[in-house]
Amino acid sequence: MSPANREKITVIGTGNYAISISKLFLHHGHEVIFGSRNPNLNYLKQNLSEFNERNFNVFSIEDAWMQSESIIFLAILADEAIYENFAEKICQLLSRSNKQTSKIIVEISNWTDKNQQISNAERLQNLFKDKLDEKSILSKINVIKAFNLINAYSLSNPFESPTKANLANLEFRVPVAGDSEQAKQKLIDLCAQVGILAYNYGDLQDSLQLEKTNSTTFSEWKIPSLISFGFLAFNFIWVFLIYFYFPKKPQSFSEYLADFSLLSHTNKVLGFTTLNLLAFVYFAYVIASIFQLKYGTKYQKFPSWLDNWLKSRKQLGLLAFLIGTFHAIASLFVTNPQYLKDWHYKLSNGVGRMTLNGELNILTGITAYLLMIIVALTSINSIGNSLNWSEWRFVQSKMGISCLTMGLVHDALMYFRIYNEKDENNYSLVYLVTRVKLIAIYFPLMVLISRFILAYCTPISRRLELIRNGSVTCNQKEN
Amino acid sequence: MSPANREKITVIGTGNYAISISKLFLHHGHEVIFGSRNPNLNYLKQNLSEFNERNFNVFSIEDAWMQSESIIFLAILADEAIYENFAEKICQLLSRSNKQTSKIIVEISNWTDKNQQISNAERLQNLFKDKLDEKSILSKINVIKAFNLINAYSLSNPFESPTKANLANLEFRVPVAGDSEQAKQKLIDLCAQVGILAYNYGDLQDSLQLEKTNSTTFSEWKIPSLISFGFLAFNFIWVFLIYFYFPKKPQSFSEYLADFSLLSHTNKVLGFTTLNLLAFVYFAYVIASIFQLKYGTKYQKFPSWLDNWLKSRKQLGLLAFLIGTFHAIASLFVTNPQYLKDWHYKLSNGVGRMTLNGELNILTGITAYLLMIIVALTSINSIGNSLNWSEWRFVQSKMGISCLTMGLVHDALMYFRIYNEKDENNYSLVYLVTRVKLIAIYFPLMVLISRFILAYCTPISRRLELIRNGSVTCNQKEN
Amino acid sequence: MSPANREKITVIGTGNYAISISKLFLHHGHEVIFGSRNPNLNYLKQNLSEFNERNFNVFSIEDAWMQSESIIFLAILADEAIYENFAEKICQLLSRSNKQTSKIIVEISNWTDKNQQISNAERLQNLFKDKLDEKSILSKINVIKAFNLINAYSLSNPFESPTKANLANLEFRVPVAGDSEQAKQKLIDLCAQVGILAYNYGDLQDSLQLEKTNSTTFSEWKIPSLISFGFLAFNFIWVFLIYFYFPKKPQSFSEYLADFSLLSHTNKVLGFTTLNLLAFVYFAYVIASIFQLKYGTKYQKFPSWLDNWLKSRKQLGLLAFLIGTFHAIASLFVTNPQYLKDWHYKLSNGVGRMTLNGELNILTGITAYLLMIIVALTSINSIGNSLNWSEWRFVQSKMGISCLTMGLVHDALMYFRIYNEKDENNYSLVYLVTRVKLIAIYFPLMVLISRFILAYCTPISRRLELIRNGSVTCNQKEN
Repeated sequence: MSPANREKITVIGTGNYAISISKLFLHHGHEVIFGSRNPNLNYLKQNLSEFNERNFNVFSIEDAWMQSESIIFLAILADEAIYENFAEKICQLLSRSNKQTSKIIVEISNWTDKNQQISNAERLQNLFKDKLDEKSILSKINVIKAFNLINAYSLSNPFESPTKANLANLEFRVPVAGDSEQAKQKLIDLCAQVGILAYNYGDLQDSLQLEKTNSTTFSEWKIPSLISFGFLAFNFIWVFLIYFYFPKKPQSFSEYLADFSLLSHTNKVLGFTTLNLLAFVYFAYVIASIFQLKYGTKYQKFPSWLDNWLKSRKQLGLLAFLIGTFHAIASLFVTNPQYLKDWHYKLSNGVGRMTLNGELNILTGITAYLLMIIVALTSINSIGNSLNWSEWRFVQSKMGISCLTMGLVHDALMYFRIYNEKDENNYSLVYLVTRVKLIAIYFPLMVLISRFILAYCTPISRRLELIRNGSVTCNQKEN
Repeated sequence: MSPANREKITVIGTGNYAISISKLFLHHGHEVIFGSRNPNLNYLKQNLSEFNERNFNVFSIEDAWMQSESIIFLAILADEAIYENFAEKICQLLSRSNKQTSKIIVEISNWTDKNQQISNAERLQNLFKDKLDEKSILSKINVIKAFNLINAYSLSNPFESPTKANLANLEFRVPVAGDSEQAKQKLIDLCAQVGILAYNYGDLQDSLQLEKTNSTTFSEWKIPSLISFGFLAFNFIWVFLIYFYFPKKPQSFSEYLADFSLLSHTNKVLGFTTLNLLAFVYFAYVIASIFQLKYGTKYQKFPSWLDNWLKSRKQLGLLAFLIGTFHAIASLFVTNPQYLKDWHYKLSNGVGRMTLNGELNILTGITAYLLMIIVALTSINSIGNSLNWSEWRFVQSKMGISCLTMGLVHDALMYFRIYNEKDENNYSLVYLVTRVKLIAIYFPLMVLISRFILAYCTPISRRLELIRNGSVTCNQKEN
Repeated sequence: MSPANREKITVIGTGNYAISISKLFLHHGHEVIFGSRNPNLNYLKQNLSEFNERNFNVFSIEDAWMQSESIIFLAILADEAIYENFAEKICQLLSRSNKQTSKIIVEISNWTDKNQQISNAERLQNLFKDKLDEKSILSKINVIKAFNLINAYSLSNPFESPTKANLANLEFRVPVAGDSEQAKQKLIDLCAQVGILAYNYGDLQDSLQLEKTNSTTFSEWKIPSLISFGFLAFNFIWVFLIYFYFPKKPQSFSEYLADFSLLSHTNKVLGFTTLNLLAFVYFAYVIASIFQLKYGTKYQKFPSWLDNWLKSRKQLGLLAFLIGTFHAIASLFVTNPQYLKDWHYKLSNGVGRMTLNGELNILTGITAYLLMIIVALTSINSIGNSLNWSEWRFVQSKMGISCLTMGLVHDALMYFRIYNEKDENNYSLVYLVTRVKLIAIYFPLMVLISRFILAYCTPISRRLELIRNGSVTCNQKEN
């Protein structure tokens, strides 16, 4: 390929990233000069064998800099000593030569040192500031942060494997941070030429955000995971205890253990956790509405715990879905006469099929689960983004609430039997109210009723609507 | 951040959307002036606490307008009276002052009033037309529709939570409709500066389409859902009746009911529905081919019912998949000796494992379901878009047809037993042909045979190929 | 719509693609002239009924060319004779008229003839070269390859069904290949005007790649599928044999067959295949590390088989997931006393629930499967792309390895029983080591141990880290 405005790109470093970035530009007809501590042309020829050898070359770092046009990619290890050494070399060069053209150093590294207060890109800029006395020279060194969010693989993938996805879909765009608007625009234009959509992300000090973005691991999942799995563990324990302390008939601990089924117990706990976690997700909306009613306006910020709760509903919901999936699969293993004797007809010639209660329990369970799948699917970006606002609300609110309701019925059917059963036992009230399947209902039922009141109790729902349309009610004005 | 071409953006309104849009521009170093009925700077300072207070301010609507540069976002409730009031205020301003610069009003609302024939943006433009006598002033008010497809959350999300997804993937682009090409280009350029890809969508009258787009709820799902769930309900009833009217042995209705299993019945109906709905999806292609053969050319439009059928195959297929998923899960609960006695060996010491028929039924069922999953997965945009044309055809046609075939075999295995069975009963012909598992085969089998003929019967397939390559055959010319 | 720079677009052909491309430009306010062998205005009026009839017209190919402005879309069948005929017509026109403006021919076809060494676009360019004597005229014909990756449906879909997904998400971008930079830029600008993101892909000779991209079918899936399904078939056979040759008690082949369960056998084979295929995926990393340790540097290319292995881990992993899904579902049908007598307590009044071994087997199996789902989900582009590097590594490496470990435990629990079992049989050593559940462990265990050594054995892990940070160790220098 041979673009009209063929440019000479300089790449410092010969590692994976340096190779990938050079491929990007070589592929689009530009020329690449590498700068390396140990210039080794053969190694590059081996790795860039698909390109014309006349289009790339390797020199010492100093020589590469001297031959550079305007854009220099810095693709070396972002180690303090290595950066220091690089800056030292360049500053010596700059102080020696008297005429200098403006250079753009594109710094691509990620934030690694957790104690560091400034970004690697700023640190590099500062090194130049410290070492260069003359302002006039310093102004010609523009450090720009870019490309750090894109790994080497994604960068060269489009031409290494030119599938339709790689060529016709837009896989990524590149935020660019730096202090010189002109330098950023130059890089953005160069990117456009090679098919990459870059955009201005801000000053060099914003580069810290870019570097941090790429070094956090599932930060928005940590607390929701703790809550969900903590709640699961907690349930595991108290359910274990409650069944020992409130049994059908008195029993010793060893009798209890001998009769204990890990699978059945786990499944019960999973079901309990799913239902209540889901209710917890929808409870945030109830609390937020109460706050708005209290404030009398939507123009007052929620307390931060509520804000965080509202923001982590997606993660909590997906974790509820994960636990629900475990429950769904585990249920398939225990819904049989070996585990659920009471749920099957006792025929003279053996065990018969399930009672109506059992069958309805299964049908409502599957329905709840399918609704949950649909709601969870909209968490996939390309599905969620394709929904408009009213569709999103329909799925997240209507279908989500239906799922919660179905889950509630699914659970209630285990406790409240609709078929005629001749039960020889006379259960105590304590026994009856300590059944986990009953306890599981309390909170979800409360959430459902609250949501119902907020939506259909006219004085409240009208007031909420007014608040959300921006009105400021009296009790706000009184404040 | 401090862009070279820092601009003063005016935002009328201080609600969620107004705040979000101001954040977008503040974050990228622009200045924002709010116009509000009740200017309250403290409230804004609270909500924009992460930004420098010198970069935003709030005034009355009139003052904000007077201080505005060229772009004014209108983020107030799109209520007729409120718009009227706003236009009134501005027109009074305009008639008083004698020198006016050109203003761009970006109208962001969604279509709410179903009876309304014009868009909110056009209505606003018309208000100005009615109230302003002088053409020269009117020409300086350019109403532009934009941003209505993007909710407040998506707009500020990239900097509120700068995850990799938010910064490096392109989540949305913004269609812009308006009558002035210059005004649209100005907005598009401003958007590019803040990292948003806007594009020209057309005249202001096209804004109705944009507003409608965001207020329909799953419009392309309505009829397919009606068909699918209607078909499911219909099957639920006739299957219930056929088993009563054509029983193995004569029985009373109460005997029938006593023996009736809701789960087993539902599962049978679900299987029937899935298989025939899937066949219905593929039948559209058969009918379309017949029409093309009849027309002798592809250059004639299909009747609209066929067109709609062809266009809703994706929705119908996914609904078949949903119902199929229900069937798959429900099947797991009934495939046991309690429900399917005939499917298990009767050993002297109890019930044994399944017969070969049963096992093959399960294996073909799972295979059909896995194929269905793969086909359904390609409905997810980011998977479907990554397939090229021949891959898409392979999945949708080859794998889809294989799935239908497997489903057919899966069903047939329930009717036609391949193992030796000593059946003491002598079933009547009527009994045999009224089995639902047999009725389930008729239509899918017909579809499969038709597809086979269309693909492999040379005279027909060659003629179809010619037609699809653009030839116009004789019977067309005769017309 | 009426863009400021309204242009006259010429489209040769009146098929699906021609109609779709004309809709794109008509919708954005441009004028379209069709060229056809059989100009039929009525047909076009029927198909473009939503547009103003004054904006399009149809002529003979020659007349359409004469009236064309600068951009001509060639949307006819990419057949050698048809192209020849088209070029002939145009060349005759060109030689007759004396003043010529520069024309851009946008060629949109896909590569069909597998033996062809050049792209259809190059072939067309060559036809002009052969037929036109004067260089000056030839230089005015610029053939450009574009739009071939986008099908007719996707092209017109955004305005035919203006859903939020179609309007606000960026569904595709268009690579453009051609020799004239100016011509490519003109097309890219025109595309931007109609909301399409086109980009320069290179010279006309790069168009071969574009054409090929759209005519391969799952090329990167072929070998992994062969390996996975071949391995499955192979396991199916040897597992069949090993159980016959190393039975619990001596038996004849007919006895073996009579007792053989297809479902149970298949399920065993599926489990074995899943576990070992997954281990095979992670083994690639081990081998690659060993190579790097041997080379002493990462700057040496891996042998191509290893490179291919590393590159097809995604496909192999997803196939393992597919087979694992089959195993998961099939397991649900066989985990019952009919199939797994040993796994259930034998109570005096019948069969009881599962032993602890069985229950743990199920719980670990579900856990492994859920981990596998999460890892597999990141293969969906819109999920995978949203992860940053450390998140990606967490999912693919930590969760993947946990999944493999869980799978191993899940399998081991079938062999090593943790509950007290009074086994009346005295199994031989040969019998014990020929159990498939034991053989299934060998390879995964080896992989897990290797990964563990590479990660935690300090001398090795430090050396690997050094190598990956770009150091070149002594044994490299010796070479």
